[in-house]
Formats: sequence, structure tokens, C-alpha cells
Amino acid sequence: MNGQKQVQRQNGVALWRQIADRIRASISNGDYDATGMVPPEMALAAEFSVNRHTVRSALAALAQEGIVRTVQGRGTMIERKERLNFPISRRTRFTDGIGDQARDLEGLFLDSAEEEANTEIARRLAIGGGAPVIRLEALSKVDGRPVSRSTSWFPADRFRGIDEAYRLGGSVTRAFQALGLADYVRDTTEVTASHADPSDLSDLALSPGAIVLVTKALNADLQGVPVQYAVTRFASDRVQFTIKN
Amino acid sequence: MNGQKQVQRQNGVALWRQIADRIRASISNGDYDATGMVPPEMALAAEFSVNRHTVRSALAALAQEGIVRTVQGRGTMIERKERLNFPISRRTRFTDGIGDQARDLEGLFLDSAEEEANTEIARRLAIGGGAPVIRLEALSKVDGRPVSRSTSWFPADRFRGIDEAYRLGGSVTRAFQALGLADYVRDTTEVTASHADPSDLSDLALSPGAIVLVTKALNADLQGVPVQYAVTRFASDRVQFTIKN
Repeated sequence: MNGQKQVQRQNGVALWRQIADRIRASISNGDYDATGMVPPEMALAAEFSVNRHTVRSALAALAQEGIVRTVQGRGTMIERKERLNFPISRRTRFTDGIGDQARDLEGLFLDSAEEEANTEIARRLAIGGGAPVIRLEALSKVDGRPVSRSTSWFPADRFRGIDEAYRLGGSVTRAFQALGLADYVRDTTEVTASHADPSDLSDLALSPGAIVLVTKALNADLQGVPVQYAVTRFASDRVQFTIKN
Repeated sequence: MNGQKQVQRQNGVALWRQIADRIRASISNGDYDATGMVPPEMALAAEFSVNRHTVRSALAALAQEGIVRTVQGRGTMIERKERLNFPISRRTRFTDGIGDQARDLEGLFLDSAEEEANTEIARRLAIGGGAPVIRLEALSKVDGRPVSRSTSWFPADRFRGIDEAYRLGGSVTRAFQALGLADYVRDTTEVTASHADPSDLSDLALSPGAIVLVTKALNADLQGVPVQYAVTRFASDRVQFTIKN
């Protein structure tokens, strides 16, 4: 589908980033499966008609993402071929969804506040404009690597204290349970993509120019009453979403 | 969530593109709803600490995407606030999904061939490796603007001639019907994002550095037998996906 090797100068995306994208795609396609190694820097430089410094910058970005690892004297080894797969379904939960793809999952509390719902949040949660909501800022890590950064809003009258429960337990599911909500379901998920902004670069440890997948998700209790609205920014190099109908 | 105005120099994404992204996000957030206009170039230049030439490049890119329109002597008007919404569900079809969001939908035949399924395509379609498949290359336009570029594979023994039926009818649903398949459903959809490659730039009329949302979708008949596997690249500035559980 996409055998083009040329990169485009002055197109708004740095050469090293374009080359990192091509190498990532080749790894994902299995082009280097025979060796488990990325071709030598000189071969890549010739293939893309760039100098070795540019190739090295591309490989450094991929190493930062955990996709490759440079081994002194041996070359660049492929560390991880696949993206983490996040199913989106009625039973979507960050922790369950990722399942046995990772050894370690962490939900890190960053910040929270009680505030008045603006028009958008009130509409999503089906509460009155200005009604109190708990805003929770959180970061999710998989095997020590940041994967997503979320801002959630919960109706405060029903879930006051959920931020503290999340801080203690590191999981929204457990926080809901601690507050008496035994079960909930995913109602709607919207998916878009955009360039990483400066906050994404630091929160998700992304290399400049990276892409984030953005979800806007509504969770509801089993009666269909909204319990959480969340905007989450995922490092697109590390994840894919799967919708099974 | 994202009040930061600074742009980052030498981060791998051109300044004009970063500014186009920020303005697009502000339009989408409704920040300019009161006037229906983007702020004047000089105001934007001051806000982002860049020169007017950079702002003008950003606005030109947004105009190319159909988001704004520059009116001589009046300024830059907002043409379209929302992205086209594509529902992903068991009943997903390009034509129905887009519904009343557009006046005109076109499915354009680009190319087709009969070939042998490689390992990946055979696995997806649950056919033998090397079994014959029809590959169909197509472009979808909404109101005259390219929205997605797809490559589909169909089991050839069952659907030989589907490429010609698509060329005549401009719709996969109608092409299936012409070949005797009255109904089908979406089985699985995988979603990722990546930077536009040179083919995307020309196929989807994107400005350089843009992002594409990539879906890998499997359609099946009502008995669950795979009938189509498609890889589709969407202009991310023009679409969002919605999953309703």
C-alpha cells in the first residue's frame, strides 16, 4: 500500500520525524522480522537519502518510545512490535482492557478540584449547568511508560470523595466501588486525533511532533445515568483501539 | 484543559502547523462562537508571538481544509465547526453513517486487481494463504472534499466482479447487493493514527504534516463469514468516530 520511501523537505514535519514514522511502520508491518533488527544507520541513510545524523535522531525518538533499543556494537534491536490494544466496548475499563499485554498498570493521581459544570460538561453528564462536579486529573502508565493522560468529571453530589478514592486505589473502577457503585458501563466514545501540545509532550514523555489519539468517553450506571465524562489523550505510537461489534 | 498558547520552535512541527492546530481547537471549543469569525491576523500574531506571515500560512491551511474562509475586507469566517461524525457499529456503512451531515457523497473507483492473498489478508478474511482476492482502491468524497482513501480486499471466488459493480454504483453496499449479498455487518474495527504520507497528501488533499486516522475494518455476512477487509485512511481534521455501546 505504501512503498514510497521519499521524504519531503519543508513540508511542516522534520525529516527525522518522517523517517521515524516510516521505520515504525516497517517494524509494525514485520519488514524486519527476519533479523529482529532495524537495518544499519548507513543503509537507512541511503534508503531515505538523508545523512546519518538524521537517521540517528529518528532512531533516538523510537528508542524513547520504547520501540527500539540501541545496543553498542550490535545495532538497533526491535523491542516491541505491536501497540497496546485498548478494546472499546460496553465493558471498557482501562485496567481490564489492557489485560495480559502488560505486567504493570498504574493510575496516578495528579490533581483534583470541585467546580461548577460548564455547559459542555453539564450536557454530557445530563446535569444542570453550574451543578457541582469533581474534576480529576490522572496519568496512566503501563510498565512504567506513560500511555494516557485524562481529565474526568463526576457529578459531585453523588461522588464526592472519588478523587481521594482514586488517589488511594489508582483505579476509577475501584474508586466507584469504594463509593458504592458496584458496576458501570461505557455509553459513548468519540475518537479524534491531533498533534501533541506542549502539555502532552511532558505528560506523556513524547518526542516533539508526535500524535495523540483523543477520546471523549461517557460512562453510565446500569440504569443509564451518567457517572463519568472523561477526555483522555493517548500517545498514538503506543496504542490502538479495537471495536468489536 | 489546554490553555497554553506558546508554540515550540524546532520541535519537528512547523510553527504555522502548530498554530493551525491551536486555532482549529479553539474553533471546535466554541471560543469564537460569539462572532463566527477567527480573530484578526494581528491579534493572532500577538497571541502566539509569531509574525503575520506565519499566521497567514496557518489560516491558509485551515481554509484548504474547509474550516475557515477568508473574505476580502471582512476577515476570516468560520465555515464549519464540527468534524464529520462516523459512527462505528454493527451497522456501519459509509453512506448511511454520514447521513444528513452532508449533501453529497461520492465513492470513487481508483483501481482494482485480482491477486493472491498475502498472510495478513488471508488471516483477516479467514481464507487460505495465496487464495485469490479482489483488491479495490477507492476514494470517498463528502460534498466534493476527499474524506477517506481505502484499500479493500474481497474473497475473489465469491465476489468476482465487485470492483466493476463498485465502479458503476459508487457504494460497497450496492456492489454487494449487485452480487447477491443483501446484507452484511461490521465485525471488528481497529483505529490508529499516523502522520500523512506522501500518498495521503495527494489523495486526501492534505496540507503537509497533517494527521490521518487509520481504520482496519472487517465486514462479515450474517453468518459471520468475512466478506471484506479494508484499510482506510481518513483526514483526521475532517472526521471523528463515535462508538455507541
